[in-house]
Amino acid sequence: MNSIGASRRDLMIGAGALTAGAMLGARLSTGSAHAQPAQAGQAPGFYRYKIGDLIVTAINDGFATRPIEGFIKNAEMADVQKAMEAAFLPKDALNITFTTLAIQDGDKLTLIDTGNGDSGAPTTGTWMANFEAAGFDPADVSTVIFSHFHGDHINGFRLKDGTAVFPNAQVLVPEAEWAFWMDDANMSAASEQAKGAFQNVRRVFGPIADKVERFGPEKEVVPGITTIAAPGHTPGHTAFALSSGEGALMAMSDTTNHPALFVRNPDWTAVFDMDGPLAIETRRKLLDRAAEDRMQVAFYHAPFPATGHIAKDGSGFQLVPVQWSAAP
Amino acid sequence: MNSIGASRRDLMIGAGALTAGAMLGARLSTGSAHAQPAQAGQAPGFYRYKIGDLIVTAINDGFATRPIEGFIKNAEMADVQKAMEAAFLPKDALNITFTTLAIQDGDKLTLIDTGNGDSGAPTTGTWMANFEAAGFDPADVSTVIFSHFHGDHINGFRLKDGTAVFPNAQVLVPEAEWAFWMDDANMSAASEQAKGAFQNVRRVFGPIADKVERFGPEKEVVPGITTIAAPGHTPGHTAFALSSGEGALMAMSDTTNHPALFVRNPDWTAVFDMDGPLAIETRRKLLDRAAEDRMQVAFYHAPFPATGHIAKDGSGFQLVPVQWSAAP
Repeated sequence: MNSIGASRRDLMIGAGALTAGAMLGARLSTGSAHAQPAQAGQAPGFYRYKIGDLIVTAINDGFATRPIEGFIKNAEMADVQKAMEAAFLPKDALNITFTTLAIQDGDKLTLIDTGNGDSGAPTTGTWMANFEAAGFDPADVSTVIFSHFHGDHINGFRLKDGTAVFPNAQVLVPEAEWAFWMDDANMSAASEQAKGAFQNVRRVFGPIADKVERFGPEKEVVPGITTIAAPGHTPGHTAFALSSGEGALMAMSDTTNHPALFVRNPDWTAVFDMDGPLAIETRRKLLDRAAEDRMQVAFYHAPFPATGHIAKDGSGFQLVPVQWSAAP
Repeated sequence: MNSIGASRRDLMIGAGALTAGAMLGARLSTGSAHAQPAQAGQAPGFYRYKIGDLIVTAINDGFATRPIEGFIKNAEMADVQKAMEAAFLPKDALNITFTTLAIQDGDKLTLIDTGNGDSGAPTTGTWMANFEAAGFDPADVSTVIFSHFHGDHINGFRLKDGTAVFPNAQVLVPEAEWAFWMDDANMSAASEQAKGAFQNVRRVFGPIADKVERFGPEKEVVPGITTIAAPGHTPGHTAFALSSGEGALMAMSDTTNHPALFVRNPDWTAVFDMDGPLAIETRRKLLDRAAEDRMQVAFYHAPFPATGHIAKDGSGFQLVPVQWSAAP
């Protein structure tokens, strides 16, 4: 890769592996008849699709593994394991994935959420490599919209050393989310464990607090992107309706965690849902709407590329993934 | 991209778009604050997963669009449209996708099928770009195994100008397939339209006819890869069992065309199935086996990355796609 005379193909090969963020072996020569095929990295984790004239790029930030035990507040372990088995997933632990959206509208580039940055599990943190593999530069981001203030959504905005990752971006946050997490009385009343989340919100947004713009529900915050109140997961948790021409997408954020559990069983509630009953009410309402309108949906924690459609199925729903297309 | 001084990141960005085979816009500058985010290409169409110690790479060769009308020999148009609607697919036309397998076992690289080469629809032909993006070189291929002799499986082996694409590969084909298509009496008896398929088999294999090795069913043709007779689609159509350590995969080839139609409705038969009733019998047998053993499966015509598991569902089955993983 150091040779100036390297052909475009050599560079493509190298880049294919490097951008994967998971290169296990390097290709040291090309074209010899019996070279060892040492490549083992994954393809870059981005996926493009169109919603009308908007170009949406789903960008993966890896995954975090968590035990099934203790994950769902109101379901029996045996039932949860049955749901995992039906989805051909392991019965003891779940890989929760992270997928943000980058939305191009002409020369405007809007992000919804930013991933884990350098604050997540070692199996996360691939967001920037995937964002760059998709052809983007953080300096090009014109707007960042946050769905809510959990660390896996906001930490990509500011590195641990304080670096602001998107220097030119306007920042839009849910009014109710800001009010809750920035309230010192709420922080004081929180458990020691929960205090960390309050402190993290201050770490990320404190340096730009006077520039952050707050939005309410049902507002078109960027042309074609309208907020949908989706409280329960957190007080100000927000979903988004994307609309352009005939195209429509509901970006559900954390309205459900893994669809194999919570789209199938919308009355289950995860430990991350701050108000379980309200989260269930919101979940049923938005899933019903998506199913009735046959709208395309995106979820932050659905398996990459984290987009599909919702079909009613028994007392719950199922997520039917979109067919991958080589032509966005 | 012409600058010798281009950084690795510039090259990665360029390669990410170029390897997509669908670059609609070029990034001409990086790092300026208000550069237009012009990227619109798809991520490279390869996906890696492990079966025991084998590293499998699914490689996409684009898609071909065909009308629903006249596609299924023994189903009512209304029922077919209902199946398409249930899968959130268009009701008039289907994008049939092509996904081959590259299997690494140490320094051996085996392909199962080769895609359309330069002989397919304009929306196909992305195989080589995706194969190279995955870090491979055609000269590294040690073995090519063919499931059957339809053009979308064999044309990638030899370009229209006669070029042999995998110069160092041993070539393995189903004995029954060879016997059928190379028989001059069968070609003479064929319709004018069908004669083209016989002639194409001669075009692809004629120049190496004396080197082609033929296999029967239930043979381990390469360590870890065992043939499974799957006749009906064509006389010698073959599926493959991959086995390594605890890992197992059934590569179903064209045992079904699109799973939304034929995994859901295994008694439907497509116009491509030369012997419809036998294709149905084979399909039910292999789907039953995959469901009972909870084996991972791969299909040539399933949506990319074309791998998942089979669950029984009513009178048919469903394909549950694998959860995309950043770590193969």
